[in-house]
Amino acid sequence: MRTRTPESLVRHLHGPGPSPVPQSVLDALALPVVGHLDPEFVAIMDEVSQGLRDLFLTSNRLTFPVSGTGSAGMEATVFNLLEPGDTAVIGVKGVFGGRMAEEARRAGAEVVVVEGEWGRAIPTEQLVQAAHAHGAKVVGIVHAETSTGVRQPVEELRPALGPEPYLLVDTVTGLGGVPVRVDEWGIDACYSGTQKCLSVPPGLAPVTFSARAVEMIGARHTPIRSWYLDTTLLSAYWDDADTSRAYHHTAPISMVYALHEGLRMVLEEGLEATWARHAEAGGHLQAGLVDRGFTLLAPEEHRLPQLTTAFLPDDLDDASTRRRLLDEHRIEVGGGLGPFAGRIWRVGMMGHGATVQSADRLLAAIDQIRG
Amino acid sequence: MRTRTPESLVRHLHGPGPSPVPQSVLDALALPVVGHLDPEFVAIMDEVSQGLRDLFLTSNRLTFPVSGTGSAGMEATVFNLLEPGDTAVIGVKGVFGGRMAEEARRAGAEVVVVEGEWGRAIPTEQLVQAAHAHGAKVVGIVHAETSTGVRQPVEELRPALGPEPYLLVDTVTGLGGVPVRVDEWGIDACYSGTQKCLSVPPGLAPVTFSARAVEMIGARHTPIRSWYLDTTLLSAYWDDADTSRAYHHTAPISMVYALHEGLRMVLEEGLEATWARHAEAGGHLQAGLVDRGFTLLAPEEHRLPQLTTAFLPDDLDDASTRRRLLDEHRIEVGGGLGPFAGRIWRVGMMGHGATVQSADRLLAAIDQIRG
Repeated sequence: MRTRTPESLVRHLHGPGPSPVPQSVLDALALPVVGHLDPEFVAIMDEVSQGLRDLFLTSNRLTFPVSGTGSAGMEATVFNLLEPGDTAVIGVKGVFGGRMAEEARRAGAEVVVVEGEWGRAIPTEQLVQAAHAHGAKVVGIVHAETSTGVRQPVEELRPALGPEPYLLVDTVTGLGGVPVRVDEWGIDACYSGTQKCLSVPPGLAPVTFSARAVEMIGARHTPIRSWYLDTTLLSAYWDDADTSRAYHHTAPISMVYALHEGLRMVLEEGLEATWARHAEAGGHLQAGLVDRGFTLLAPEEHRLPQLTTAFLPDDLDDASTRRRLLDEHRIEVGGGLGPFAGRIWRVGMMGHGATVQSADRLLAAIDQIRG
Repeated sequence: MRTRTPESLVRHLHGPGPSPVPQSVLDALALPVVGHLDPEFVAIMDEVSQGLRDLFLTSNRLTFPVSGTGSAGMEATVFNLLEPGDTAVIGVKGVFGGRMAEEARRAGAEVVVVEGEWGRAIPTEQLVQAAHAHGAKVVGIVHAETSTGVRQPVEELRPALGPEPYLLVDTVTGLGGVPVRVDEWGIDACYSGTQKCLSVPPGLAPVTFSARAVEMIGARHTPIRSWYLDTTLLSAYWDDADTSRAYHHTAPISMVYALHEGLRMVLEEGLEATWARHAEAGGHLQAGLVDRGFTLLAPEEHRLPQLTTAFLPDDLDDASTRRRLLDEHRIEVGGGLGPFAGRIWRVGMMGHGATVQSADRLLAAIDQIRG
């Protein structure tokens, strides 16, 4: 087995995640490992939960990082909220909405899919009509669709849905890059990932559950299908108001250190400032791509700054250009998924990588390859 | 949020895991993050899969680290092997056997529990009789029970069971500390964790599936209950013989780096040498504890060297002594679980921490506290 040097792994990460990880987060990762019930680790857990509340803009007590990647966060929220006999309305206008629908089926729920066009938001009215027509227990939607770069106006949903349906939101790519207001928007369960706008390596999935969701989960008729992701067990370990700290599974200590540092940096910068930086960097990149003959996929009003999707100009080949960007410039950008494979790029300006300078470096590299 | 210094987190980890992590593994953790489809990362994945095969002593193609902790490895193997309508015979003689039975129930299987005494191995004959009497599809057993320090003689099972039942083995605490011979012992699915005898932080669960298990999983009547842990999807990303490398979820890059380095160190030392070092360190500790009035729980023929369980002498209080070990000596040892809570200690001599010197440091600290 060959040991890698840091020099062999230098990349400018502008794919759809992971995003660049700053040195202080890497330093936190490399802190000495302590036990998962060590008093100092418990203090770090409490700070992480509170930091996540500050980031999600929520006072939800059950707020913690799931010990898996963003997809584990999806499975955790879906499996806790849904059981056989339940109906879920899921909006699908990209890969991750489709995955959410599949997760809801595996939870045993009846799933009503509201199909939207890839590259557009789903009209709020369509989701609301389906929810009311089917008496949905849960309405699930992706806030920032990583396959299309589209922002769904999640803030419109609760007023239109009324108080009843539980609102489940995927904000893996959203959190930290654009506003996410869990309490104000009436969200009941929300999950994210560490490797997008938080500048932390992949491996944890921040989640938060509203008090009424916790109550509903406690009154389920059937066990939660996953033991690993069972919040009725996990809450005894993570809940800082529960002094038992009952062991469930061994927490991924080093990744929790890294998330702690990533949260510290975001909160120190301030949410408004972080959002503004993403908006500036993404806008700068998008203008530069348009100048170079790219066509943006997402309409302006629903365009994410942190994940740009753009059709390639005719004279640029997808795979070979991305390969040259990686080999010659150490820059990673992402290819298209589904109907857009080979036709669009997905370019991340996320977290630590969301700067005008990063955008300019990528644009200059494209110019150089084009000759 | 308060930044921690390395000095504030210095510990000598001799609990039931996590174990001490050597600096080279921490350095690997802190390597720059690259994309999860980066050619260099794919090469690292291939080396990790092959390293795990060398460690599990198997030629199983489907061998990879699950993106979660050891319990996620348990859920992954149980959920892939079992579906509603199946019968599983699970041996329970400690916390982790009980957890396996619970996982099998959540997979929808009919579960027959073979109860054993905590602190003893279950007689092979009892497991075999139950398997035959109930026509079990799967027989599940914990090889190295972390709650009792007992080694189950897994090597006796296949010859006695005959060829039919699928054999599922938990070796979270076993792998790297005592022999685990997946192919020779006829094991069909086996899982471990990184934070025990591999000296890697918690966060990944090495798993391996036999070819006939993979075939059976492919012919299931119902979908695997977990999407996140669905090996029919995961194999397209991890299998080095499948060139598609289809994206499933974003791999926890940094943790895979760390496992790569941990595997490199174990394989460089050699399995026989690693096992011998654990045997020497564990034996030394156990003799020292007996000298000091502790009584060992596990019988000699089934006693794990890497995890010692010992009743405290009358003059030593459990909680206060463990607290003093941590506060005054920076040494962590584990308390008892279940019927042994407050009465035994669980002392790890695992991975990098399995040395005679470490054992002597702990024994000296006990002497000093005792006065």
